[in-house]
Amino acid sequence: MKGQKHQNAERKEHYTVYIFSEEEIRNVTEVNETALELIEEGFQKLAKGEVTMPPILRVDIPENNGEVDVKTAYVKGMDKFALKISSGFFNNSEKGLPSLSGMMLLFSTETGFPKAVLQDNGYLTDVRTAVAGALAAKYLAKQNMQTAGIIGTGTQARYQMRALMLVRDVKEVLVYGRRHERVKEYIKDMEEDLNIKITAADSAEQVVRQSDTVITTTPSKTPVINKEWLHPGLHITAMGSDAEEKNEISPEVLGAVDRLACDSKTQVFRLGEHHHALEKGVIQKNSDIAELGNIALGKSNGRKEENEITFCDLTGTGVQDTAIAVYAYEKLIEAEKGLLFTE
Amino acid sequence: MKGQKHQNAERKEHYTVYIFSEEEIRNVTEVNETALELIEEGFQKLAKGEVTMPPILRVDIPENNGEVDVKTAYVKGMDKFALKISSGFFNNSEKGLPSLSGMMLLFSTETGFPKAVLQDNGYLTDVRTAVAGALAAKYLAKQNMQTAGIIGTGTQARYQMRALMLVRDVKEVLVYGRRHERVKEYIKDMEEDLNIKITAADSAEQVVRQSDTVITTTPSKTPVINKEWLHPGLHITAMGSDAEEKNEISPEVLGAVDRLACDSKTQVFRLGEHHHALEKGVIQKNSDIAELGNIALGKSNGRKEENEITFCDLTGTGVQDTAIAVYAYEKLIEAEKGLLFTE
Repeated sequence: MKGQKHQNAERKEHYTVYIFSEEEIRNVTEVNETALELIEEGFQKLAKGEVTMPPILRVDIPENNGEVDVKTAYVKGMDKFALKISSGFFNNSEKGLPSLSGMMLLFSTETGFPKAVLQDNGYLTDVRTAVAGALAAKYLAKQNMQTAGIIGTGTQARYQMRALMLVRDVKEVLVYGRRHERVKEYIKDMEEDLNIKITAADSAEQVVRQSDTVITTTPSKTPVINKEWLHPGLHITAMGSDAEEKNEISPEVLGAVDRLACDSKTQVFRLGEHHHALEKGVIQKNSDIAELGNIALGKSNGRKEENEITFCDLTGTGVQDTAIAVYAYEKLIEAEKGLLFTE
Repeated sequence: MKGQKHQNAERKEHYTVYIFSEEEIRNVTEVNETALELIEEGFQKLAKGEVTMPPILRVDIPENNGEVDVKTAYVKGMDKFALKISSGFFNNSEKGLPSLSGMMLLFSTETGFPKAVLQDNGYLTDVRTAVAGALAAKYLAKQNMQTAGIIGTGTQARYQMRALMLVRDVKEVLVYGRRHERVKEYIKDMEEDLNIKITAADSAEQVVRQSDTVITTTPSKTPVINKEWLHPGLHITAMGSDAEEKNEISPEVLGAVDRLACDSKTQVFRLGEHHHALEKGVIQKNSDIAELGNIALGKSNGRKEENEITFCDLTGTGVQDTAIAVYAYEKLIEAEKGLLFTE
């Protein structure tokens, strides 16, 4: 059935759904310039009001320490839109399974009919999340970057660092994680991957104090970065928080930096670091906070001087999902991949 | 690949997704007593607070006269939950395609991993919507039913009448639709299907005045039933409205009946007929409105006397989707159907 072509009338084609496996998807998409361009374009359209992005639908399954998020976005002019289901079940590790999983669906924006199931187990989310980090660094990190710091040692700690390399010529990496074994693994894997020197830091404080850019990638519910450690030229991207209770950055940090940025104000006010800073009264909703799309359009300022301190809050948006899923779909069809499912 | 069994370790099983076609699903599920019992049980659990049912996620695509709804519900104690995507694209008829389509997904409530794609094109929604209608009639329609009226001639006009037969011994059916040809088709198809006399009415008014129970199944944005037509013993179920702008029943009707009921107060206050009656001040949020689950549990009253006038507002709930999808899945696995998709 693989690669089967539909020869029937147009009507039949509307009932055709492709199913793609994680392996197929991994073979055609990666963290690269093209992905970065697509995500940048997506954020620009979001800023121009050309995207309909409803609030995230969330189901909690507390009995199993689980949560499921559904995100979607319709981008005007695109012939498909994505719906993404991503889940985090934090007892899975006891079963020897990854905590995170997920899939994306593509629907026609002309007929509403389903077009594809991308059974990616969260891979496309990793890619689009990483390149959003690269986009933040592109406009907000200092140009002359000696040391990049990473807090956390999981999948995004890897993808974010790969993505950062797309936009800055990093000389060395400092990594901090709570579990020594995992830090060692990170260093081993990533030194080979990036061909760069990576050093283990003793603390998050050391990472922040000694890095030009820091990316936090943890699911922490208590801040891992404090205001006292900030220094001229620093940029921080916090990508770990995507839910009310998560909080990687001390709220005071948001009051102390020169420039605040985010992927979507609506989302960070509810789910991101800005949410906690709002609650503490450190910032207000009408504070000067730039959305990435407006920065990319030149309507809001990114970094203006090398010694500014900047901060970007990423919660992950449906427009990123639609952009990456449509791109993957086109590459997969071009490569004649997928299982064709016809009524 | 059909019916392929997975022999590998448990870990592998977690990555196994079944895909079922509409035909396979139709062969194992129908409007029957079992479906009615399951939906009744689902509503009871909803009333007992054993269901987490987040607000519907909705995307509008006005350029193509389209809307997409995503519904879900987690029922405590069930090992799977469903996520349903249903779309209505009202320019599709110009392309010779049905306006409505959709699919359901099943996820494990233990791991969050996807378990099945039910590519049903909205069939399971038709079933669970129809049996919710039967549930409403079971508790709210008069016992001695001579004539049942149906307004609308589409798919639900057929399913609702089939479902009503599960709970009442209807002697004849009156049908009204705006398009004469479709009324004729309805009568031809359904007389054969139900083995009962069906008569075309000249107006919605005639249907209401001459029926003991009336079911409205239209996507109307202006009321099709007026207060003046109500009479003792009448029950009305309105199942057409599932969005703010839809409105089948004149708000004054809700103020004039003896008993108000609905599937979910939260939903009907936002999307159903109650929404319009609230706006007009005909009812208040604290008016006596019974949810089907509470009626089924005996905690709220259904019909108490044969000459009462009763009304039930159905918007369609995620708990119905989870109940019917899990049932279909079990029947499909039992019948060794589906395409197995393994990483």
